[in-house]
Amino acid sequence: MHHFSDRLNAAVVAKQTPALVGLDPRFDWLPPDVLTAARTRASDPLSVAATAFEEFCSRIIDVVAPLVPAVKPQAAFFEQLGPAGCQALHAVMKKARDRGLVVICDAKRGDIGTTAEAYAQAYLAGADRDQSPWGADALTVNPYLGDDTLTPFVKVAQERGAGIYVLVRTSNPGAGTFQDLTGADGRKLFERVAQAVDRLSRETAGTSGYGAVGAVVGATYPNELADLRIAMPQTPLLIPGYGAQGGGAAEVAAGFDAKGLGAIVNSSRGINFAFRSEPYKTQFAPDEWEQAVEAATRAMIADIASKTPAGALQR
Amino acid sequence: MHHFSDRLNAAVVAKQTPALVGLDPRFDWLPPDVLTAARTRASDPLSVAATAFEEFCSRIIDVVAPLVPAVKPQAAFFEQLGPAGCQALHAVMKKARDRGLVVICDAKRGDIGTTAEAYAQAYLAGADRDQSPWGADALTVNPYLGDDTLTPFVKVAQERGAGIYVLVRTSNPGAGTFQDLTGADGRKLFERVAQAVDRLSRETAGTSGYGAVGAVVGATYPNELADLRIAMPQTPLLIPGYGAQGGGAAEVAAGFDAKGLGAIVNSSRGINFAFRSEPYKTQFAPDEWEQAVEAATRAMIADIASKTPAGALQR
Repeated sequence: MHHFSDRLNAAVVAKQTPALVGLDPRFDWLPPDVLTAARTRASDPLSVAATAFEEFCSRIIDVVAPLVPAVKPQAAFFEQLGPAGCQALHAVMKKARDRGLVVICDAKRGDIGTTAEAYAQAYLAGADRDQSPWGADALTVNPYLGDDTLTPFVKVAQERGAGIYVLVRTSNPGAGTFQDLTGADGRKLFERVAQAVDRLSRETAGTSGYGAVGAVVGATYPNELADLRIAMPQTPLLIPGYGAQGGGAAEVAAGFDAKGLGAIVNSSRGINFAFRSEPYKTQFAPDEWEQAVEAATRAMIADIASKTPAGALQR
Repeated sequence: MHHFSDRLNAAVVAKQTPALVGLDPRFDWLPPDVLTAARTRASDPLSVAATAFEEFCSRIIDVVAPLVPAVKPQAAFFEQLGPAGCQALHAVMKKARDRGLVVICDAKRGDIGTTAEAYAQAYLAGADRDQSPWGADALTVNPYLGDDTLTPFVKVAQERGAGIYVLVRTSNPGAGTFQDLTGADGRKLFERVAQAVDRLSRETAGTSGYGAVGAVVGATYPNELADLRIAMPQTPLLIPGYGAQGGGAAEVAAGFDAKGLGAIVNSSRGINFAFRSEPYKTQFAPDEWEQAVEAATRAMIADIASKTPAGALQR
């Protein structure tokens, strides 16, 4: 199986859930045992942190690999550690693919012409991870520079069985500043981006009907999510904002088709650092943080199954 | 001197030119001697390419450091080589700062909340390059996610004497697809972004009057450049599109104030690979590529001085 959405959907069906685990390591929040171990293996602060990030994410991957179809490492937290962090990001993505997970690199890249092509070549590996240095199945992409700047990403994605998720509606409080600008035809900027994405999704549809071009649509704007699902019927959605950012399962329900496909829902902090917050903080000691990761992942899976069409995956 | 624009302007005055040299290494175009040397020092293809990129950019820096105030490495070409490329990017930025150049990392980052802050912490070093792992003076930033997502970049930039350049009007043919969306008030998306940037520039103004928040405005749209210069009087501009992309010195003239400050003009391919194109291809042998870099840089400096207010810097 080559096509990105076909592979993603197969993974969602196999795991019976559209839950996506974000990998967002933060140095100040790391479990004590991870930090202690990293300090025995490295000395300078950036290398200690990079070693700890790799260890932390690798152990999260071991916990969630049997439970969910995909993970989404956030490039920013790794880049924050300089080249050592980039090495850790690479190792984490390799580990996730070794464990059979679909890997969506959340790097929000975007540039023009041959520069965009360089980003696509860098990250998009698709079905065969050796096709690119970073080996991701998919990459998040920023559309501000224009629809011609999406073309190189789409081309490489199609060639390699990879995918891209274009930012359409983000989950932050100020998302509307520019995304809500309304044109003379009454359509907002994010709706115009959605229209471009819809076209690209149709042009790249796999056997599942979904395209290789997806959209990021935040869970924090549920009405818009419902409208966008209708406007982009063949577009795989990546929905951030569940959990720590305030979105609940009911808010993401409109993202799915009747089979429970068409969307994946991300939680990062709420799973990575479950041991630091209730109810898991009471249930698990800090050195039981992996059990907290598992419990939080299972709770998210159950929550989404009970309140959205994705429940159909478990029947 | 701490403030980004104050430091940049001092460098522009010292070098008597606003010419900015982009560092855009492409493997297929490298001079033969650089490639041969890299092959003696590394074996796997990505390490060979990363070694060659570092060597190539380092030697360009040695040529241009006495001539121009700043360089702009393009992150995409380095990331294309995986972690080894990131290591090379880091080395190139360090080399440029060692040679006293202002370093603008062209990575077009953008994300929400603490993720945006992670990117800011990663790249922005400002006056003291040890303040961040990558050690850049400034970073290019994508505004699509909303004005609240610029805030973390602005905060870190101000603390560290660093700068950001927000994408306002890019230089690609399809730039208008989304950037030209016109609202009910008759203002286009890029003009709204410009308004937000103008406010941030005023709030972060240094003693030169220019802010720590700049704007990327392509040379390929000269009328808009003129309008944007008026709309953002305290905003330092980064003008791509000169040279290989088709913009000439006359097209960038409107970007400057009467002293020749307020804008820097980038050329990448036209300088990096001058030895591959006329008139330099005839004048210099492939192993004289550094002389071609110098000749192309001097020609660009003279062209801008003769056709724009930046000529005032040489008097």
